Amino acid sequence: MRPSSSPSDGLPGGLLGGLSGAPDVDAELGDPALLRAMLDVEAALARATADAGVTPPAAADAIVAHCHAGRYDPVALGRAADAAGNPVVPLVRELTAAVPASARPWVHVGATSQDVLDTALTLVAVRAHDPLRRHLDAAVAAAARLAAAHRDTVMVARTLGQQAAPTTFGLKAAGWLTGLADARDRLRQAAAAQPAQLGGAVGTLAAFGPAGPQVAERFAAHLGLPATALPWHTRRQPRLDLAAACGGLLAATGKAALDVGLLAQTEVGEVAEGDAGRGGSSAMPHKRNPVDSVLVTAATRRGPGLVATLFAAAVHEHERAAGAWHAEWEPLLDLLRCAGGAAARCARMLAGLRVHPGRMRENLDAAGGLVLAEAVAARLAPAVGRGVAHDLVARAAAAPAFRAALLADPDIRAHLSEADVDEALDPCRWLGSAGRFVDRALAAARDADG
Amino acid sequence: MRPSSSPSDGLPGGLLGGLSGAPDVDAELGDPALLRAMLDVEAALARATADAGVTPPAAADAIVAHCHAGRYDPVALGRAADAAGNPVVPLVRELTAAVPASARPWVHVGATSQDVLDTALTLVAVRAHDPLRRHLDAAVAAAARLAAAHRDTVMVARTLGQQAAPTTFGLKAAGWLTGLADARDRLRQAAAAQPAQLGGAVGTLAAFGPAGPQVAERFAAHLGLPATALPWHTRRQPRLDLAAACGGLLAATGKAALDVGLLAQTEVGEVAEGDAGRGGSSAMPHKRNPVDSVLVTAATRRGPGLVATLFAAAVHEHERAAGAWHAEWEPLLDLLRCAGGAAARCARMLAGLRVHPGRMRENLDAAGGLVLAEAVAARLAPAVGRGVAHDLVARAAAAPAFRAALLADPDIRAHLSEADVDEALDPCRWLGSAGRFVDRALAAARDADG
Amino acid sequence: MRPSSSPSDGLPGGLLGGLSGAPDVDAELGDPALLRAMLDVEAALARATADAGVTPPAAADAIVAHCHAGRYDPVALGRAADAAGNPVVPLVRELTAAVPASARPWVHVGATSQDVLDTALTLVAVRAHDPLRRHLDAAVAAAARLAAAHRDTVMVARTLGQQAAPTTFGLKAAGWLTGLADARDRLRQAAAAQPAQLGGAVGTLAAFGPAGPQVAERFAAHLGLPATALPWHTRRQPRLDLAAACGGLLAATGKAALDVGLLAQTEVGEVAEGDAGRGGSSAMPHKRNPVDSVLVTAATRRGPGLVATLFAAAVHEHERAAGAWHAEWEPLLDLLRCAGGAAARCARMLAGLRVHPGRMRENLDAAGGLVLAEAVAARLAPAVGRGVAHDLVARAAAAPAFRAALLADPDIRAHLSEADVDEALDPCRWLGSAGRFVDRALAAARDADG
Amino acid sequence: MRPSSSPSDGLPGGLLGGLSGAPDVDAELGDPALLRAMLDVEAALARATADAGVTPPAAADAIVAHCHAGRYDPVALGRAADAAGNPVVPLVRELTAAVPASARPWVHVGATSQDVLDTALTLVAVRAHDPLRRHLDAAVAAAARLAAAHRDTVMVARTLGQQAAPTTFGLKAAGWLTGLADARDRLRQAAAAQPAQLGGAVGTLAAFGPAGPQVAERFAAHLGLPATALPWHTRRQPRLDLAAACGGLLAATGKAALDVGLLAQTEVGEVAEGDAGRGGSSAMPHKRNPVDSVLVTAATRRGPGLVATLFAAAVHEHERAAGAWHAEWEPLLDLLRCAGGAAARCARMLAGLRVHPGRMRENLDAAGGLVLAEAVAARLAPAVGRGVAHDLVARAAAAPAFRAALLADPDIRAHLSEADVDEALDPCRWLGSAGRFVDRALAAARDADG
Repeated sequence: MRPSSSPSDGLPGGLLGGLSGAPDVDAELGDPALLRAMLDVEAALARATADAGVTPPAAADAIVAHCHAGRYDPVALGRAADAAGNPVVPLVRELTAAVPASARPWVHVGATSQDVLDTALTLVAVRAHDPLRRHLDAAVAAAARLAAAHRDTVMVARTLGQQAAPTTFGLKAAGWLTGLADARDRLRQAAAAQPAQLGGAVGTLAAFGPAGPQVAERFAAHLGLPATALPWHTRRQPRLDLAAACGGLLAATGKAALDVGLLAQTEVGEVAEGDAGRGGSSAMPHKRNPVDSVLVTAATRRGPGLVATLFAAAVHEHERAAGAWHAEWEPLLDLLRCAGGAAARCARMLAGLRVHPGRMRENLDAAGGLVLAEAVAARLAPAVGRGVAHDLVARAAAAPAFRAALLADPDIRAHLSEADVDEALDPCRWLGSAGRFVDRALAAARDADG
Repeated sequence: MRPSSSPSDGLPGGLLGGLSGAPDVDAELGDPALLRAMLDVEAALARATADAGVTPPAAADAIVAHCHAGRYDPVALGRAADAAGNPVVPLVRELTAAVPASARPWVHVGATSQDVLDTALTLVAVRAHDPLRRHLDAAVAAAARLAAAHRDTVMVARTLGQQAAPTTFGLKAAGWLTGLADARDRLRQAAAAQPAQLGGAVGTLAAFGPAGPQVAERFAAHLGLPATALPWHTRRQPRLDLAAACGGLLAATGKAALDVGLLAQTEVGEVAEGDAGRGGSSAMPHKRNPVDSVLVTAATRRGPGLVATLFAAAVHEHERAAGAWHAEWEPLLDLLRCAGGAAARCARMLAGLRVHPGRMRENLDAAGGLVLAEAVAARLAPAVGRGVAHDLVARAAAAPAFRAALLADPDIRAHLSEADVDEALDPCRWLGSAGRFVDRALAAARDADG
Repeated sequence: MRPSSSPSDGLPGGLLGGLSGAPDVDAELGDPALLRAMLDVEAALARATADAGVTPPAAADAIVAHCHAGRYDPVALGRAADAAGNPVVPLVRELTAAVPASARPWVHVGATSQDVLDTALTLVAVRAHDPLRRHLDAAVAAAARLAAAHRDTVMVARTLGQQAAPTTFGLKAAGWLTGLADARDRLRQAAAAQPAQLGGAVGTLAAFGPAGPQVAERFAAHLGLPATALPWHTRRQPRLDLAAACGGLLAATGKAALDVGLLAQTEVGEVAEGDAGRGGSSAMPHKRNPVDSVLVTAATRRGPGLVATLFAAAVHEHERAAGAWHAEWEPLLDLLRCAGGAAARCARMLAGLRVHPGRMRENLDAAGGLVLAEAVAARLAPAVGRGVAHDLVARAAAAPAFRAALLADPDIRAHLSEADVDEALDPCRWLGSAGRFVDRALAAARDADG
Repeated sequence: MRPSSSPSDGLPGGLLGGLSGAPDVDAELGDPALLRAMLDVEAALARATADAGVTPPAAADAIVAHCHAGRYDPVALGRAADAAGNPVVPLVRELTAAVPASARPWVHVGATSQDVLDTALTLVAVRAHDPLRRHLDAAVAAAARLAAAHRDTVMVARTLGQQAAPTTFGLKAAGWLTGLADARDRLRQAAAAQPAQLGGAVGTLAAFGPAGPQVAERFAAHLGLPATALPWHTRRQPRLDLAAACGGLLAATGKAALDVGLLAQTEVGEVAEGDAGRGGSSAMPHKRNPVDSVLVTAATRRGPGLVATLFAAAVHEHERAAGAWHAEWEPLLDLLRCAGGAAARCARMLAGLRVHPGRMRENLDAAGGLVLAEAVAARLAPAVGRGVAHDLVARAAAAPAFRAALLADPDIRAHLSEADVDEALDPCRWLGSAGRFVDRALAAARDADG
């Protein structure tokens, strides 16, 4: 089902990398995709300068004709990059050598390496957002289906690891849904706002004379990217927005994965991952590991460090930075890769999730109604006051069998019949606004989609 | 000018803490402010439940009357917090003991500790945003003044630490301005979106029966905070938005501070911090340290780690988390504190900045026009073609004196007069769109303010 | 039991800070302790310069006599620090004003602010290590007691959240023990290697003429600290060693806390925290939260960000850094504080831990022997080969009742009697080297103590 | 000189990755190297179990014969890994299929996936340490040569970016040397202590019965790795030691790179990177970028985030973790990769560094002796007292020309002749212990090598 990650894609596919990424997102982030984006940028520059009368149209045509990734060798370019500190210098050299002599002066005209690589990474991020978004849509849809289907499936809520009170599985899924929809929203905004970069050597576009702004606008337009009022060589907020959005996505998928992992514990057993052929153990044939939960959790753990690196790399000195800029490249791609893998696996995990309402009910009932102590007290309060009610219930809760103790206590039975007690101990009557919250989450998700 | 940071504020003022924070922002983040916010939350809960008919109005009045911070001892509460894992439990105990017996059952009704502390931290963040925003406004205004005043002050641009080509100090200041305005914008949005939290023990508001949503809406309204569709006990995106905004602010102030520090180097000397009594050295009387630049830079270095901690703390299991939530509190306050200190010092640094256009011009001229090699080539190109022009200029650039070599080269002089050469070597004629970019940045900042 | 964290200690005690720290460790890290350390450093400098003949002995005596923390106001010093960028400058000013005129020239002679603050923070770290070490000793001892007492207490091991195979609680505790002992060892080494700092304005000790090395050695000797071959103003490896040791300690305590939290889940119930008055919930009287586990986990989450900040602050330019150094101070203290709180709470958690071997056995038996599938296969293998054995057992494992299926299978019964099967299904016979590993861990811990 | 990074190595070579790594270190970290290490581990397991009598010797021989990386396809294994969550499961499947039927039961006997991957990553780290160590040796040697050659080359020291007082370039290089030697030492210790891992499914080695410890010791011996007292599946301190060592190395190389970048600024010009063909700019032919400094700085910026990720991934629950372990793999390899690239580039940068003592002297003299104010005061002090001396010198320092003001001041001239003043203003007489510190650093480095 999943195509092989090509060994020449410059990404850590192979033995380990595929476990953090997703093939379709990875394909937009690898070396062929980056090389293609760099050449798209050079082509857009040629067209934009021709539009503005800076470059002869024939030269632009010649340059565009040579901006095809197949003509260049990423490995050789990478090797040559060491002398310049970035891969744009050797690519421009090769592109210049490839075009007819008459077009050579106009290759890369007026631009600096950072213009090309910043814009190419913008393109890569925007293009990777497409499959990433599809995985997020699938995850959101799966969470919404779970929330709707289990709107009234009662289970025990747990706080600080302890059984606390009743809730519904639908409300839990609605929480995942809301988190994932938030993350999708942040990421969409951040991706849409990644701008084209064109500032020339020092951000003045001096080589274009008065045509600078016009060239910059045409350049962005050819690439379908937003332009900025002035170059952003040293203002990295767009990258921080993207980093934070990916970090939020990893947190949102990580929350769902952590819950699934905990609910799938042998002793809890309320859910299981669905894909039959996955999660086996060679040594222990009885074992079924929640592999997607595990791998999403692993990606989640990598988010904060990558986000921190991008924030640390956002302080650029003078007109172009000596190192901070270079430190952005790989972490940005790694973060997008981890986000892609987490989104894809979260979608698969939720879409295939097997939910066991019976086990949920068993776990809820196991504590003999103790998780409804608050409900019994609430029912007593109108008669004896909240304070006395709390004390009476606490006394019963300390006994071995809660329901029996409640029924045996004359101070309680003076006000509550056995039927009253059993109503109070019915978890379905102590769900508060769970159902309405599910409805709201589903409505909000529908609005966001519409 | 700066009031003493009170020793009882529970913040690391004193010997070191004041150097990362700003007194007015710190005052909104300390223990008295947090205690006040927690009591504001309990009061709002009492009012909201009374509004919804859950609590008797007289009980609400009695509770509200006791929600004054002066009645409680933060140190004793902090000590008592150890047994419960948070300070809300002892505060509720003390508040309950303080009110008349008839009101006691209604204290903290239907809420959980996380409701109170989450909402209190929201209040604290929103209140700290006021002085923080004033510092940011001042920093933005100072950057705008510098950009306008030095729109045409020519200086050398530096890339990778090397002199590169002419630019203007106005464009540099416009870059600071744009970054600071971005940061202000992100922070304003994030602060405005920090929501009230009310979910009860497990997020269902069970204790309120059908009145849950009404109570939650009244609760948020009493506090002037946004409500959310469902409780966000385990959906921490609002905190991530705030963390990312503070991180972006630290990057934006850090960029300005780094530039100031580099421009203030003895060998560069293009700017100096202005406040006369600051930055002295006891051992070296000739020395004037750029103290605000240094302290902003220090705050900047702490941003990524704090941002990472908040992203790492955003994955909450089940209905309320065992540790992740607790890990948020201090880093969130520290991050706001560092943001406040950085904004205040950046504003002071920029407002008092002494700019030395003469030294800028000297540094620009020191390389004898080499930074205008590209300009000379551009002037030659129409006559001899871009390739030949580049080679001719490169030959002259390799000579000891660039201008002399240009004038002595017959292949160049065949096309350029001495006046042509000198025009090409005039940095004021090779500023591209610098002025227009400054105008755009100023206009955008005016729009954002308007 | 725990004394109140004084409000004047300059640490975030009060409402929240006490939940991350421990009172006795915090007391060594607060403003009074830091002020005392700074004055100890000035006194040692006076003595050392007198020893080397640089300072008149009477002047040294006069200076030492004024180096008492009670004479100075940390809040006023902190306020005055803003102009200089560090609190040493105003402290030296006050100390100079306090001593007789004849001694004034010799106050702080030949030193720079960084000498004083670096050495003072070394002192603070070394002094905080004493109580921190006691907490770690207690944690190690408690883990060792658990490992010894439960060397043969059988329980189910869990991998990736799933029941996997038998182990012992003793081996689990031995793992905690080994981790804690490692952490204690790393921290002891790092604390012992924190050096004195004395380099003067630029690291040459120029003011001492040829006496520089002698002064530096006497200075370190007076403080009981290691000297270094040359000043370490910009070589921060000692701080990185300390940061990494604290980070490792937080990971080791965090591992124990995470295990305790998971084993204490309502559905697992194999351990509980012991302190009777702690962990209550105001809303849910039946609930007992594992508060120490939660707070250690919270501290654990803050480690990586603080460690990262210290590593990021370790790159210092030129002879003394503009910001990187300043960024170290608070994170170093915060990290020590979190380490202290985690060590103290981990010790309390383990010392009071209630272990439920009966519940462990129930959970182990709940899966009907499936976790011993590997053991049954191993017993069959000599007769039928490993491959056939595995297949036969896997077939039985897929049936509803594993033991019954094993006994009903003629291909298995041809080689195994009912007694053979039951021996294979006895978890106590499938513990491998668990006991020997416990013994080794206990022996290693005894050696480390000896 | 540098061989092409093979496209099949599974590492992000290609366009960007080569700029953070070094080819020879990268070659030990790529997929072929990891696959080879995994097979070495399976082979060692086969031999060790045969040694202990668990596996028939012929089966072991057959398994070893098939443990050759060329037989397996990393890309296909990576793809298959998705179902199991790690690449060991499919590799064991393929290896099992490859060996004769009689050997099949003994493939991977008694081990778990984590045993194989942990030990393989240990092997990879140890093997990568060899070239990494060579680069560090070269960097240390180059720093030592610079320190020795420039032991007495006087230059100005800079603190907080400002000229402060004289020092020597030798002392600066000695600081780099000491930092690099420290880092080399930490890394050597950490690499030597990376252990073999063998615990079986849950850390008890149950499948080996009483032979567990013997198998584990033989296993480690076959691989030439240290054994541990008990398995370390969830005790990650060895990885933290390695992470901290790499982080320290990045800080040490980053310090040298930052200094070189600052000293190479056009306005400072005291050093330049040496390699003639590197650092060119296509747009600005006069420009020579300090590329190695830039790329080391970029690697340095990535250290803290990667270190933080490894510390965050060090808290493993139960007997084997669901995600934390998986989160370690790529960051560990990335950190080693960045460390390798930084070490290699730092060595090249220092070995080729061009030092300009003339420019150093010019910069030192530019401030007209102001950086020697402290020296003049020291010379006056015996006659007039330190306080008066300081005031007299400060008065002269405020004048436009310091030396002239000193000579014109009768209060000074009463005690100092023109020759005295000029001696005081001679920076070579105000170097304190710089020379002795250089000698100490060189001696320490020689001892470490010997």
